[in-house]
Amino acid sequence: MAKATEFVKEIADIHEDFPQWYTDVVRKTQLVDYGPVKGTMVMRPYGYAVWENIQKELDARIKATGHENVYLPLLIPYSFLMREAEHVEGFAPEVALVTHVGENELPEKLVVRPTSETVFCDMFSKWVQSYRDLPMLVNQWANVIRWEKTTRPFLRTSEFLWQEGHTLHESREEAEEETIKMLRVYEEFAKNVLAIPMLTGRKSEKEKFAGAQATYSIEAMMLDGKSLQAGTTHYLAQNFSEPFNIRFLDKDGTLKYPYQTSWGVSTRLIGAVIMAHGDERGLKLPPFVAPIQIALIPVAMHKPGVLEKAEELCAALKAAGLRVKLDATDNSPGWKYNEYEMKGVPVRLELGPRDIENGVVTVARRDKAGEKFTLPLEGLADSLGTLLREIHENMYAIALAFRDSHIRTVHTMDELGQAVQSNNFALSMWCGDRACEDKIKETYQATSRNMPFDQSPVGDTCVCCGKKAKHKIYWGRAY
Amino acid sequence: MAKATEFVKEIADIHEDFPQWYTDVVRKTQLVDYGPVKGTMVMRPYGYAVWENIQKELDARIKATGHENVYLPLLIPYSFLMREAEHVEGFAPEVALVTHVGENELPEKLVVRPTSETVFCDMFSKWVQSYRDLPMLVNQWANVIRWEKTTRPFLRTSEFLWQEGHTLHESREEAEEETIKMLRVYEEFAKNVLAIPMLTGRKSEKEKFAGAQATYSIEAMMLDGKSLQAGTTHYLAQNFSEPFNIRFLDKDGTLKYPYQTSWGVSTRLIGAVIMAHGDERGLKLPPFVAPIQIALIPVAMHKPGVLEKAEELCAALKAAGLRVKLDATDNSPGWKYNEYEMKGVPVRLELGPRDIENGVVTVARRDKAGEKFTLPLEGLADSLGTLLREIHENMYAIALAFRDSHIRTVHTMDELGQAVQSNNFALSMWCGDRACEDKIKETYQATSRNMPFDQSPVGDTCVCCGKKAKHKIYWGRAY
Repeated sequence: MAKATEFVKEIADIHEDFPQWYTDVVRKTQLVDYGPVKGTMVMRPYGYAVWENIQKELDARIKATGHENVYLPLLIPYSFLMREAEHVEGFAPEVALVTHVGENELPEKLVVRPTSETVFCDMFSKWVQSYRDLPMLVNQWANVIRWEKTTRPFLRTSEFLWQEGHTLHESREEAEEETIKMLRVYEEFAKNVLAIPMLTGRKSEKEKFAGAQATYSIEAMMLDGKSLQAGTTHYLAQNFSEPFNIRFLDKDGTLKYPYQTSWGVSTRLIGAVIMAHGDERGLKLPPFVAPIQIALIPVAMHKPGVLEKAEELCAALKAAGLRVKLDATDNSPGWKYNEYEMKGVPVRLELGPRDIENGVVTVARRDKAGEKFTLPLEGLADSLGTLLREIHENMYAIALAFRDSHIRTVHTMDELGQAVQSNNFALSMWCGDRACEDKIKETYQATSRNMPFDQSPVGDTCVCCGKKAKHKIYWGRAY
Repeated sequence: MAKATEFVKEIADIHEDFPQWYTDVVRKTQLVDYGPVKGTMVMRPYGYAVWENIQKELDARIKATGHENVYLPLLIPYSFLMREAEHVEGFAPEVALVTHVGENELPEKLVVRPTSETVFCDMFSKWVQSYRDLPMLVNQWANVIRWEKTTRPFLRTSEFLWQEGHTLHESREEAEEETIKMLRVYEEFAKNVLAIPMLTGRKSEKEKFAGAQATYSIEAMMLDGKSLQAGTTHYLAQNFSEPFNIRFLDKDGTLKYPYQTSWGVSTRLIGAVIMAHGDERGLKLPPFVAPIQIALIPVAMHKPGVLEKAEELCAALKAAGLRVKLDATDNSPGWKYNEYEMKGVPVRLELGPRDIENGVVTVARRDKAGEKFTLPLEGLADSLGTLLREIHENMYAIALAFRDSHIRTVHTMDELGQAVQSNNFALSMWCGDRACEDKIKETYQATSRNMPFDQSPVGDTCVCCGKKAKHKIYWGRAY
C-alpha cells in the first residue's frame, strides 16, 4: 500500500499524453516497479493482488471446463525448440539461453521457456498411449521469458506470468471445438470479471502463433483507440504431435497422431484493465479484480467514537467477504480521497460523527465522479455487494459504448487511414493476401486484429487491392 | 488421474527398500514424472493438486500474519550475487547462468534466481526511506533453480517451487521475533495441514543459510528414521541491508540500516508428506492436502439405480465442499480399491444395491486398514467432514508416536552411532565446535539437525570431544 513518504500526486494528462499517463499511473499507484535487468518488472503488492484475483477467477473457469493444473520445468533442451520448424523461427531470436552452471559449460545449451509447447509434447508422448487417455486437458500457471527490445510494464516485458493450456484430442473436430470453447471462456471472463468487451475472431496467417494451424484472439479497445490482444487460443492440428511422436492406439486398432490445442492469457491483462477503464484521475479498477473494493475514510477521526465505529464497520464488511481498507492514518480526508481515487478503488465510504448519528455512511463511486449519497449502516454489506455489481455493469457498459462508437466500417484505403488515425478500429473486407496486410501496416501502422465469426459482408472487394474479398476483418493500431 | 493403460501395481517393499518404494510411489501414483533436463521434474495433476492445497492453506496464514505477495524477476544481474560474501560462496557453484539471447551475447551474464534475497534488497533500497515504511512484510511464490548432482523428485531437484518471505524491521528484536513467529507458523501448518510433527530449533553455524546470522528449521522424521528439513527461517541481521544500502530515516532523524529476515518452504513438503505417512500399500495423504479426499466406488454398478444414486451422492458431497471422485469406469471394484489405496485417498465409499436399500454407504479408512463400517446417507457430508478431521488427528498421532519412539538421548559417540544406525534421531549435548560436527558426520553420516528452544540439559559434556557442553542438539541422517 502507498506510504506517505513515497506518494507523489502528479500524473500526466490522459488526453494529452496517454503513454506517459500509463507510465505514471502504473508506478505512482505502486502496481509495478522496474526490475534490475532491463525489460523486467517487479509486481508490487497492489499489482500482484490484481493478478491473484485474475488467477482465482480464471483458474476456477479452467477447472470447471475439465482441465487440471500441472507444472513443467523452466529449462528446455535447445534441440526441442528445433523440432517444429515455424516454432523455432518464431522464438529462436528472443530466447534466453543457459549455457553454464557455475564455472562449468553445459553439454547442451538450455532455453528458458518462451512457451512450453515442446515440453508438453515430450511429456504427452510418454503419457498418451490409447484413445482412453484422451482428451488430455491440462493447464500451467508459470513465468516465461521472451526478450524484447522495447518494453512497457504489463504490456511487453522480457518476463511475464501467464497460464498456458495444452490439450490433445482424438479428432480434428474436437480440437477445433476446444479452441473455440476456451476463446469463449476468455471472452466471458473478460466481460464478467474485467468489465472489458472483447472482439473475438480468427487471426490472419501473418499474425498467428508460430506453429499453429489457426489462432483466435480476444481483442480489447484501449482508451486511445488502440487494440490490445488480450488472449489467444491456437488450433495446432498435428503440427507438434508428429515431430514429437505423440501417438495413440485408436478404437480401430491403428496408431494415430492426436490433434492439439494451446491457449493463454498473461499479466498483459492488467495492462488491458488499466487502459480500458482509467481516467484523468488515475486507475479505475473493476470491482472483481480490485485489491481494495472499498476505502473506508473516517472523517473528524479524533472525535469520540468515530474511529471505533469505523473499525467495527470495517471488520463487519471484511467478515462479509468484501475487500475493505480502513485508512486511519494522519493524512487529511481530502488527501485520502485523492489517493484512493488515483488507485482506482471502486467505492469510497466516508464515516463522520453526523453519519454515525444518522445511522448511515456517505458513499462515493469511482465510476461516477462527483456523485455522493448515503446508505444505511444496517444491511450495509448487502447493499455494498449490490453496488459493486452495479459498478461492474456500468464500467462494462461505458467500455462497450466507447468501443462501439470507435469502430468505422470502411471501403477504401483512405477511409481506413482516417479511421485508424483518428483512434478507431476499421472494419473492412479483405482479399486474404499478405501483401495487402503489409501495405496497410506500412501506410497506416495498422495491423489486422481478427476476423469475426459473423462474416456477413460489408462489401465485395478488398479495402486495399480492390480484388474480390474473402474475409471481413478488423484493423487497428495495436499494443 | 490414473488411466488403465498406464497403471502398474507393483511397488517395492517399504521395509526392504525404502528409497525404491519412494521412487515407485511418486511415479506410479502419477504425482510426478522426470523432466527432459536432468534433475528436473514434472508435477502431474495429482502431484500439483497437492501443491495447490499446500499453497492455499499456507498463503492464508502468510497473509493473516500481515504479509503481502509480490513477484520479482527470475533473472538477476551476476554482480548482485557477489555483494554479500557468504551468499555468493554458498550459491555461485550451483547457479544457472544466462549468457546469450538468441545469437547475441549479453553484456552481463544473468543468474537464474537460486533465491531472491539480492533482488528484494535492491528493490527495498528504493522502497524504504523512513521508519514509516517499516516493517516491510512481503512474500513471493516462485520457481528457483539450484543445480544438483544427485536429485530425487520433490526432495532435491534442480528446479523447485517455493515461497520466500522477506521482511525488514526497525529493530533487531522485532526481526528476531518475526523469524521465530514464521517458524511457528510453519510448525502449526505442518501439524494442522500436513499432519506432521516438527522439531523446531536453531541450526548450527555449519548448517545455516549462506548469508544469515541465524537459521531456524522445522525437521520432520521420515519413516526410515531420517530427518527432512522441511522449512527454514533466517535472521539476516544487517548482512544484506548494508551492502545493498537499504537505509531508513529513524524517528531520531538519523539514517539506519534495517534488520532483515527471510523464510521459505518448498515442494519438498510433498516429499515430507509421502515419507512421513506412507505404508506398504502406497501413499497415505492427509485429508487437508489430499486432491481426492473421498473415492466413491459403485458396486454392482450395472444394477438399476446404482450409478444414478452414486452420481447424486457425488454431486451432493461436492456441493458441500468435499473433494470427491466417483469412479464409474469398467475396472472391477477390487482393482479400484487397490488404486485409491495406493494413491493414498483418505476415505473410500462403496455404494451397492444393499447399501442403497438400507440408506447407508460402506466406508473404509485409508489410515485404518481392514476396518469397514457404514454411515447413513442422511447427513453424510457432515459425518464425512467429521471423519476427515478424525483421520487427520489419527495420522498426526501415529506420526508423533513414531517419531517420539525413535529419539534416543545419547552421551557417547558409540551411543550416538547406535542410535542413528538403527534409524533414530540422537539427542545429545554438544560443545558447539565445528570439528565435532565434522567428526560425527564422517564417522556416522549424521548431521546436526537443530537445537531445540528447550535447552534443559541432558548432561554436561559434548557427546563427541567430552569438553564442556554449550548446547543440546539433535543429530540424524538426513535427506
